[in-house]
Amino acid sequence: MSECDLVIVGSIGLDTIKTPSETRELLLGGSASYACAAASFFCKNGMVGVVGDDFPEEYLEWYRGFSVDLQGLQQKEGRTFFWSGEYEENMDNRQTLETVLGVFESFEPVLPEAYRSAPYVFLGNMAPALQLHVLEQMENPKLVLADTMDLWINIARDELTQVISKVGMLTLNESEARLYTGCDNLVEAAHALLELGPEHILIKKGENGSMLFSRNGKRFIQPAFPLPQVTDPTGAGDTFAGALMGYLAQEASTDEAAIRRAMLHGSVVASFEVEAFSLERLRSLSESDLKDRVEELREMMRVD
Amino acid sequence: MSECDLVIVGSIGLDTIKTPSETRELLLGGSASYACAAASFFCKNGMVGVVGDDFPEEYLEWYRGFSVDLQGLQQKEGRTFFWSGEYEENMDNRQTLETVLGVFESFEPVLPEAYRSAPYVFLGNMAPALQLHVLEQMENPKLVLADTMDLWINIARDELTQVISKVGMLTLNESEARLYTGCDNLVEAAHALLELGPEHILIKKGENGSMLFSRNGKRFIQPAFPLPQVTDPTGAGDTFAGALMGYLAQEASTDEAAIRRAMLHGSVVASFEVEAFSLERLRSLSESDLKDRVEELREMMRVD
Repeated sequence: MSECDLVIVGSIGLDTIKTPSETRELLLGGSASYACAAASFFCKNGMVGVVGDDFPEEYLEWYRGFSVDLQGLQQKEGRTFFWSGEYEENMDNRQTLETVLGVFESFEPVLPEAYRSAPYVFLGNMAPALQLHVLEQMENPKLVLADTMDLWINIARDELTQVISKVGMLTLNESEARLYTGCDNLVEAAHALLELGPEHILIKKGENGSMLFSRNGKRFIQPAFPLPQVTDPTGAGDTFAGALMGYLAQEASTDEAAIRRAMLHGSVVASFEVEAFSLERLRSLSESDLKDRVEELREMMRVD
Repeated sequence: MSECDLVIVGSIGLDTIKTPSETRELLLGGSASYACAAASFFCKNGMVGVVGDDFPEEYLEWYRGFSVDLQGLQQKEGRTFFWSGEYEENMDNRQTLETVLGVFESFEPVLPEAYRSAPYVFLGNMAPALQLHVLEQMENPKLVLADTMDLWINIARDELTQVISKVGMLTLNESEARLYTGCDNLVEAAHALLELGPEHILIKKGENGSMLFSRNGKRFIQPAFPLPQVTDPTGAGDTFAGALMGYLAQEASTDEAAIRRAMLHGSVVASFEVEAFSLERLRSLSESDLKDRVEELREMMRVD
């Protein structure tokens, strides 16, 4: 048994976020932060990432509060990855105002020995070369989920294609699926991506939920939990992915039924995450709040 | 027992439609055409609408092919309502190129005596004053579903509000729900609409499915059937609504579980409709194709 069931590799950032109603500075963000916090509701997970010497001690405490294993967390001289963005009125679109890569620019993800035999791996959005480097260090994972973004499709397509060919599940959003494949139609796009190797393609559609396309021809549609108010959508996709992988690690399964339940749970954890900035809502989220909303969303999907 | 279980009132049009791959002229269209054809898979329904003296006899044959009762169909001197539109590459947006109201401009929906005691009514998108006029002629329907559009929200808001207060279910799309209520958030918008009287608000989201909000606090999310190719999305909402009401009329029910099944069936009939222009796909749709896809979509929504 490895020391953690799920290894999560990704960015750790300090985010300054402007929404129509509020501006918040230097919030804890990054794909690894969201995914680890979300996964921790289901399983023991370890974080691989890098922070600068400006990284607040308080945020390390937050990670420890989620029982995230921090053996793989590097602290380097320099500035922590910084991102600042602004959301439009309807929260659908956002604009990046500033990005400072800082120590993330020279990040080399080195997995602690104890992580290399972990059965589940989430490769958060980062340069495909780094994702490949992580894969080389893993012994024989049961399931690897990789995320990506438009930037890598545009500037590192070949390496991204290699990543896709080596993972069991790829997640990306609608526009990224269209951009990579050149198919406007999402079903076509998903089929084109399945051709490259993964067992599953998981297309994220924001407030419209997500869709799973599998090589065996099965499809599953997971709606998002309808919320009366969204405070900050940043991190929703990473939270979804982290909870999904955490759930599968907890179930020790990769079968279709387990993946569906994992998507349901991922959707619910993400719905809590967007109710506040950063990890603020997840920090106070109770087991019973989570269970109640899972049942509520399950009921909204039921047809007798 | 009335002569038909479901009365459908709406527009009948000749449509010229341009998609990225094809242009088709003078197709049979209009909300009543789509809704009646869709409902006919489930129940006997009667159409109330108006056509001009240019209306092709062939299209009357099409209606008869669906066993639509045509007692309420008026034929007047003049031109049939004409609409022409063009879809953008991704089929998400369309632009109206030309509209000729023709005989629809002076349409007065008069219900045949036999229709007035029908238990189910679908008020297709038309001037709210006409919808009110239909409601005055109905004796005591079990369920009325009304559709509308941005035009009426902008120019006949007060009458539309009267319609909303008198129907059991209102259907509209996302942007219309936001426009009418001024709420960006759909959950908020649906709650604001429920306050006006209906038991149910049914929000259509195109390829992202639909959501039902009920006064009893329940919510249901119906995904659209994922299609590898959409030929022409015109009429999808009317087809959905017509099949939904047809299904409820067949079940003789208005309870929550029946409405959910009705939305599932509506979604499936609409998915066939958009595979071809006009009613072309519905004309060849078999009972077994329909049942198979209903089971397929049901399976895509299942979480065990």
